[in-house]
Amino acid sequence: MIPRSRFTRASERPSGIITLLTDFGTDDPSVGMMEGVILASFPEARVVALSHAVPPQNVLHGAFWLAHSYEWFPDGSVHLAIVDPGLQGLGRPIAIRAGRHYFVGPDNGLLSAALERAAFADSHDPEIREIDPSCFELGTALPPRTLHGRDVFAPVAADLASGRMVFSRIGKRVDFVTNSPVPKPQASAARIDGEIVCVDHFGNLITNIRQELLLGMREKFLWLEERAIPIADSYFDVEPGAYVALVNSLGTLEIARRESDARSSLGASPGTKVRVQ
Amino acid sequence: MIPRSRFTRASERPSGIITLLTDFGTDDPSVGMMEGVILASFPEARVVALSHAVPPQNVLHGAFWLAHSYEWFPDGSVHLAIVDPGLQGLGRPIAIRAGRHYFVGPDNGLLSAALERAAFADSHDPEIREIDPSCFELGTALPPRTLHGRDVFAPVAADLASGRMVFSRIGKRVDFVTNSPVPKPQASAARIDGEIVCVDHFGNLITNIRQELLLGMREKFLWLEERAIPIADSYFDVEPGAYVALVNSLGTLEIARRESDARSSLGASPGTKVRVQ
Amino acid sequence: MIPRSRFTRASERPSGIITLLTDFGTDDPSVGMMEGVILASFPEARVVALSHAVPPQNVLHGAFWLAHSYEWFPDGSVHLAIVDPGLQGLGRPIAIRAGRHYFVGPDNGLLSAALERAAFADSHDPEIREIDPSCFELGTALPPRTLHGRDVFAPVAADLASGRMVFSRIGKRVDFVTNSPVPKPQASAARIDGEIVCVDHFGNLITNIRQELLLGMREKFLWLEERAIPIADSYFDVEPGAYVALVNSLGTLEIARRESDARSSLGASPGTKVRVQ
Repeated sequence: MIPRSRFTRASERPSGIITLLTDFGTDDPSVGMMEGVILASFPEARVVALSHAVPPQNVLHGAFWLAHSYEWFPDGSVHLAIVDPGLQGLGRPIAIRAGRHYFVGPDNGLLSAALERAAFADSHDPEIREIDPSCFELGTALPPRTLHGRDVFAPVAADLASGRMVFSRIGKRVDFVTNSPVPKPQASAARIDGEIVCVDHFGNLITNIRQELLLGMREKFLWLEERAIPIADSYFDVEPGAYVALVNSLGTLEIARRESDARSSLGASPGTKVRVQ
Repeated sequence: MIPRSRFTRASERPSGIITLLTDFGTDDPSVGMMEGVILASFPEARVVALSHAVPPQNVLHGAFWLAHSYEWFPDGSVHLAIVDPGLQGLGRPIAIRAGRHYFVGPDNGLLSAALERAAFADSHDPEIREIDPSCFELGTALPPRTLHGRDVFAPVAADLASGRMVFSRIGKRVDFVTNSPVPKPQASAARIDGEIVCVDHFGNLITNIRQELLLGMREKFLWLEERAIPIADSYFDVEPGAYVALVNSLGTLEIARRESDARSSLGASPGTKVRVQ
Repeated sequence: MIPRSRFTRASERPSGIITLLTDFGTDDPSVGMMEGVILASFPEARVVALSHAVPPQNVLHGAFWLAHSYEWFPDGSVHLAIVDPGLQGLGRPIAIRAGRHYFVGPDNGLLSAALERAAFADSHDPEIREIDPSCFELGTALPPRTLHGRDVFAPVAADLASGRMVFSRIGKRVDFVTNSPVPKPQASAARIDGEIVCVDHFGNLITNIRQELLLGMREKFLWLEERAIPIADSYFDVEPGAYVALVNSLGTLEIARRESDARSSLGASPGTKVRVQ
C-alpha cells in the first residue's frame, strides 16, 4: 500500500483521468466508441479501463469492484460505470462528488458502494446530482433510442474531467440513491459475518470483509461452514495445496488455495456465507 | 446520439487519434508492438482499440464494425484496420481520405464499407492512394517477411496522425478498391430486406439494416422467416423473455431477447435473412 | 522490420512509455489499479499493454514474450513485468538497465531473457539493481501483505519513466539474476535444435529459433520428428491446408498451417523439440 499523501492532490481539481467500468466486453467497438466521444470532447483525457468484464447485468459485482479500486486513482478522477440490470432499465443518470472523486453512471446501485466508501473517507458531505441532459447541450438531439454510456455518461465524464463543468450545474441535487447491492459484513468484537461476492481470474474466492475489520481481532481463522481456513499474510504461510485466507489487492479477505484454484475444489460461490470467529 | 457539430473540427487537421481494429487478439504482444512503433514515431499519438477480436480472417465482420463506429471519433482521426483473409494475402496496402477521416489498411474490402459511408457523409470526393513504402523511408529495409500491421500500416498511420505526411505523398492515386464484403440491404417504400451480419457480447443478433432506412416506414415488425418481432425503442417495451428489434449502438437494427440471449434460442446466425415489412 | 535508426533516440533519456506484461488478466481491476498508481505518480506516462494473458504462473511464457517484443518500443522505455511462479514467491524486486531500455519486476527469471537480448544489443554493460523500497519513500508504509505489482513495481516504473529517479539510486547493485527459463536453441553450421515455446492466438506453434540463426543456412526445412516442414517467406508459398515454417512478428520461427490451425492437427505443444537440418 502506498502512503496516501504520496498521491493526494490538494483539491478536487480534475486529474484528467476517466476510468471505465462496464459489462460491455471488449470484443465489439462499444467501448472504443465511448472513448471516441470522450476524446472528441476532451482530447487530453486519460482513459483507463477498470474492467469491461463485469458479468452481464451483475450490478453487485460491478459495484464491489468500483468501490474497492477507485481510490488508487488520484483525487479529482472521474469514474464512469455502467451495468444494465435488465429488469427495469438503467434508472435516472446521476453524478456524484465524494471523497475527492467523481462518479458518473446510472442510479441503480452501481455507484452506491463507492459512494459509501468515499463519503466515509472524506470530511465533506458527498453531493449527488441527477444529470440534466439540457445542461450538456444534449437535450434536443436525444433520439428515443439513447445509449446512455456513449450518449450521456461519456460527454458528462469528459466535461467533468476537463474542468469545464462546474459540478453544481450538472442538474438538480438529489438526496437519495438506490441502496448498494453489495452485502455488508456484520462485525462484533468477537466475530465478523460476511460472504463471498465474486471470484477472480485465478479462482480465488473474494469476500466482502475488509482488512480494517480485522484490526485488533485475535481470531485467525475464516470459517466456511465447518471448515476453518487460516488467515495469513502470504500464500507461503501454508503448504502447497492448502487453503489460506488473505487480504487481496482490493483490500478484502479472499480464500485462495496455494498453487491451485479454490473455486473448483471448495464448492463455494458468490453468496456463500463466511465468518471470522 | 450526440449533435455532430459538437465534435466536428473545422478541417482535416489530424486529431492525433489512431484507432486500431484487428483480428490479432490481445493475448500475445502483437498489438503492443504496433503501439510501440506508433509511439516511437509519434509520441503524442492517442491509440484507441476499436476491437482486436474480429473473428480470425473474417473481413466482413471487421468491415461492418469499422463502418459503423469510426464516425464517433473526431474528424482527422486515423483508423488502422487489418484482417488477413488468408486466401490470397492482404492485397496492396492503401490509405483513404474520406468524410474527414483517414483509413489505413489492406485493399481486401476491409476499408470499403467505411469508405462508402464516409463518402456519403462528405461533399468532397474520397481520395484513395496505394501506399508506396519508399515514401516512408521503409523501402530498402523491408525484408521478404514483412508484417504489414506493424511494419507498414503503423508507421503510415503515425505519419498521418502527426500531420507530418501530406496525404498526396503517400503513393499513387488509385480509382478502385475491392468491393465491400458487407451485404447491402435492399429497401423499397414498403419493405426492407437485410440479413444478420454478426452477434454481439450479449448474444444480440445484429443486422445490416441502418436506422435511416426505417424513417417514415409504417411497419413496425422485423420478420425472421415467419416470426414477427416488434420493432421498439427499448427493451422495456416488451415482456421479459420476449424478442424485440431495436437500433443498437452501431446504428443498425438488432434482435434482442429481453433478459436473455437471442442467439441461442432463435437458431439464427450471420447470413440469416431478415425483412422489415 | 523498421530500420532501427528510425526510432532510436540518442540516449537513455526516458521515453515516458511504460509497458505492462502480467498474468493478471483484464477481467478484474488489478491492472487498472496499477495504472492508477502510475498516473498518480507520473501523469504524463504512456502505459501500453504488452499482454495481461500470460498463462498464470508461466514465467517461461512471459519471459519469451518480453524478450522478443520490448525492442519495438523507443529507447528509454520502461518495461514492467510480473508473473508469480507460485512456488517460492516472487523473489527480490529488481530493476535492470540494458540495451537502452529499463526492466522492472521480480528476480525469478521473467526479465532474464530480455536482459540477455538487450545486453547483446548494447555496447554498454547492463546494470542490475535490487529495488530498495526505502529509496522510494515506500518503506515505512509497507504492510505485511504487499502487492508487488501495484505497490512496488508500479511506483518504481513511474519514477524511472518520469526521469525523476537516477537509476543508480534504486538500490544496491547485484551481479547475478535468476537464469532465463526460456530454453536456448543449439546451433551449429549444419543444424539448429530448438523447441516450441508457446502457441499464439491463431494456433501457430512458436519456436525459440530466431531468424538470425537462419542466416546463411542452406537447409530450408524445419523438422518435427520425422515430418519436414518447408521454411518459407509467406503462407502463400504453400497450398491451402499445408504446413509452413516462417518467421513471425516476434522474430522467431513458427509452424503455421495455411488457412487452418497447426496446433490442433500436429499434436505438438510447448516443449516439443524441433530442428532445422
